[in-house]
Amino acid sequence: MRAEIISVGTELLLGEIVDTNAAFLGRRLAELGVDVYYRQTVGDNQVRLVAAFELALSRADLVLVSGGLGPTMDDITREALAEVLGDRLCLDEGALRQLEAHFTRLGRPMTDNNRRQAYRPSNADFITNRRGTAPGILAHHQGRTIICMPGVPRELETMFEGEVIPRLLRNSNGEKNRVIKSRTLLLTGLGESAAENAIADIIKEQTNPTIAPYAGLGEVRLRLTATAAGAEEALALIHPLEARLRERLGDVIYGVDGDTLEGVVAEKLTNRGLILAVAESCTGGLVSHRLTNIPGSSVFFRQGMIVYSNEAKKELLDVPDEVLEEFGAVSSQVAEAMARGVRLAGDADLGLAITGIAGPGGATPTKPVGLVYLALAYDGDCLVEKHTFSGQREEVKYRASQAALNLLRLHL
Amino acid sequence: MRAEIISVGTELLLGEIVDTNAAFLGRRLAELGVDVYYRQTVGDNQVRLVAAFELALSRADLVLVSGGLGPTMDDITREALAEVLGDRLCLDEGALRQLEAHFTRLGRPMTDNNRRQAYRPSNADFITNRRGTAPGILAHHQGRTIICMPGVPRELETMFEGEVIPRLLRNSNGEKNRVIKSRTLLLTGLGESAAENAIADIIKEQTNPTIAPYAGLGEVRLRLTATAAGAEEALALIHPLEARLRERLGDVIYGVDGDTLEGVVAEKLTNRGLILAVAESCTGGLVSHRLTNIPGSSVFFRQGMIVYSNEAKKELLDVPDEVLEEFGAVSSQVAEAMARGVRLAGDADLGLAITGIAGPGGATPTKPVGLVYLALAYDGDCLVEKHTFSGQREEVKYRASQAALNLLRLHL
Repeated sequence: MRAEIISVGTELLLGEIVDTNAAFLGRRLAELGVDVYYRQTVGDNQVRLVAAFELALSRADLVLVSGGLGPTMDDITREALAEVLGDRLCLDEGALRQLEAHFTRLGRPMTDNNRRQAYRPSNADFITNRRGTAPGILAHHQGRTIICMPGVPRELETMFEGEVIPRLLRNSNGEKNRVIKSRTLLLTGLGESAAENAIADIIKEQTNPTIAPYAGLGEVRLRLTATAAGAEEALALIHPLEARLRERLGDVIYGVDGDTLEGVVAEKLTNRGLILAVAESCTGGLVSHRLTNIPGSSVFFRQGMIVYSNEAKKELLDVPDEVLEEFGAVSSQVAEAMARGVRLAGDADLGLAITGIAGPGGATPTKPVGLVYLALAYDGDCLVEKHTFSGQREEVKYRASQAALNLLRLHL
Repeated sequence: MRAEIISVGTELLLGEIVDTNAAFLGRRLAELGVDVYYRQTVGDNQVRLVAAFELALSRADLVLVSGGLGPTMDDITREALAEVLGDRLCLDEGALRQLEAHFTRLGRPMTDNNRRQAYRPSNADFITNRRGTAPGILAHHQGRTIICMPGVPRELETMFEGEVIPRLLRNSNGEKNRVIKSRTLLLTGLGESAAENAIADIIKEQTNPTIAPYAGLGEVRLRLTATAAGAEEALALIHPLEARLRERLGDVIYGVDGDTLEGVVAEKLTNRGLILAVAESCTGGLVSHRLTNIPGSSVFFRQGMIVYSNEAKKELLDVPDEVLEEFGAVSSQVAEAMARGVRLAGDADLGLAITGIAGPGGATPTKPVGLVYLALAYDGDCLVEKHTFSGQREEVKYRASQAALNLLRLHL
């Protein structure tokens, strides 16, 4: 089965609201094994909505429409649907009585505008709306199915889950229905094209599941999508591929699906009962900010220091004067001294330090913008890393925070 | 002029990400007086993208495409555009050199995948990408204009504002075309509806310039958009309206257009030669992070402390034990002690402190999630503010950082 989504609403085209309904429908249809090749967005204009209907009906078996079923004059989905069906709108007495009962309950008078919601194409059926006054509409046309739902997200979602999905499964009972499952592997410490090259052969030979790489700031996502007769079968296709990718990519994979790098690090610290102290120069508080975004972070995070000046590095972290003078604030030696210093000052198990040049200023012939040193001090030893990051000041800060959290993750 | 937007990406159809680029483009085009009647969303499939191009070209003068310009094999916008233009892809030596220089700076090898980004239809032009490696593409076809932009939101937005809008205005010079100028006033410390109510009469009577309010997290934006024969005339319409709004709204207006609250605060601190020290509890480093996003912030920012535990508050800021015990860590008394303490410890002119309950845990019968105390210590005195913010943990952190920066701004 192939579906097409039509989102109706001038406010969508004007960008006054973001189309979360289309994302919801896309996600649920994928999980149901229904292909979606196109999505259209049109304003509250009957001529253009009719054109969108006809285009969708020419290339999809199932057309899902959101919006335009409200009471006001610019809600024209009912009229456009009737025109496409070559049908007329008729008053549905049952729906009218429900509307009247609804307004009686509210103790409000029902306006003529509200009455419009009780009209449907004479050959179409209403779909119950358990969350609002606008019923959905189900119509069949030249072997296609058209389902119109209200644009209010909670009304649409309730109607789709409770009324539409059962009808879809019933409709497609003939052919044993396909299911799509996908799982996303999250990578850091490797660029998008480097990641793709590392697994190019696997991507090429892979048809089901498919592998799709996406680039994020300081990370890469690999989405594995499998199609099968059922959920178990789909997952059974994904697991061996995931195992193969993990074997190939190793520990650059930091998580899956909704994981965050700070969340993964926070969980490891919490489980191991370790206390972390952070000393930030060029990241200016970003690493601490990301870690404290995690609920319950106070268990492992007690204090952080932002030491932007040499004075602060000396006073708060006891970085020796000579080290600062001989090697400069952006050096592996100062990074190490900062990490050891903050671990001591914070009476912590681990001391994480970041020093670098976020730019645009501060570069020297030997030290370019984007040069960052990371250090992690732990019982008896200290790891130091050197990186050169690309991008504007804020991107350098983010990439540095990502690398610092990743250094911590790999140590844990 | 009539525009159509094409969003490219299978992840959009699958609902894995919400299409914020389309909303951004729709909003800006509306402000520029460009009509948008349709939006199409297609996956990473060349045949279907070509079909979408042809449909858009049949009904719009301007086609704006987002996504599909990345380095990987599933980025097919370049190929689809060349097919539509009946053109071939050629290697752009200039773009290739820029890419090579970029990777040399990073000290990373450039893969063949990255080379793909240096290809464009031979009759099309590249558009500079100031935020990433994928250049945009500008093409003309049968009197229509096609503009392809990368899908990463910050890259797309920077390219649209800095490169695309100027070209659109230039193109429309031929026919003595109206020019659209807009200016955005940035407000904080006032909700959207409160702001709207405060100027409801002005909004109602305004037709040119128009006034469009947008709600942001912890701020409200008022965009004034004027249409006139020329740029000067447009600005001459905007200035008196801006003066009137400033008179009405007063100092809740913190900046205009691209200003940021942290940038405004940083400029005031720098101009007055004042040193700031920050002590953060519930914001966990966010205030320091935002201030150090500003280039040159080391002039006024030397150190910050993230004091998540009571121990840290005592040791680093000398917050008295009795005060913590009597009033609790989230109290005006502790906020004031933190502000005075960090000012002293940092040998600074100003000490800014934030303590609160970001949630979801930590609430008590008398202290709900979102309760935040701010304090600003300066020579001889200390300001204290109490706020109760709504939202999830990260929203509370952001709103608290916004209020803290605003307290600082109003004091300066």
